[in-house]
Amino acid sequence: YSRPASSSAAAKSRRMVSVRAEAVNPEIRKTEDKVVDSVVVTELAKPVTAYCRCWRSGTFPLCDGAHMKHNKATGDNVGPLLLKKQ
Amino acid sequence: YSRPASSSAAAKSRRMVSVRAEAVNPEIRKTEDKVVDSVVVTELAKPVTAYCRCWRSGTFPLCDGAHMKHNKATGDNVGPLLLKKQ
Ligand code: FES
Ligand code: FES
Repeated sequence: YSRPASSSAAAKSRRMVSVRAEAVNPEIRKTEDKVVDSVVVTELAKPVTAYCRCWRSGTFPLCDGAHMKHNKATGDNVGPLLLKKQ
Repeated sequence: YSRPASSSAAAKSRRMVSVRAEAVNPEIRKTEDKVVDSVVVTELAKPVTAYCRCWRSGTFPLCDGAHMKHNKATGDNVGPLLLKKQ
């Protein structure tokens, strides 16, 4: 077996896929055209509340720590937005 | 020319790539292990401030509307978190 030349169909396929833009959100509220959430900051209960930016949380729009598994699986470096009352 | 059978190297390559987990953040602060931002909500200046969750904003962690181009290019449905003072 020899590695396919870079002009092979397989290599072309890989190149094309690697530059294709990917969706960030695979599963959350896919019936909505655009998922926008609002927080009235005066209603925050805790000193610090973490909001998800990885789109993997089981408690979206809140962060449940799922970014850690996502980062480990993909080499990504995403994390939450922390809302602090002071 | 005939389309490669599904057991061809090219088809295997495509299948493997299509199920591989992808990073959400391609570019922002890649020297950081985990990108976490904090907002002290009492310091918010405007009635509504939009924070980015698509990782495409030129003003991250703020939203600059780049989610619209991302959604159009990928079929995704992501949008910002809106922080409202009341
Ligand atoms: S679970 Fe998504 S940022 Fe924490
Ligand atoms: S630019 Fe990222 S959510 Fe608007």
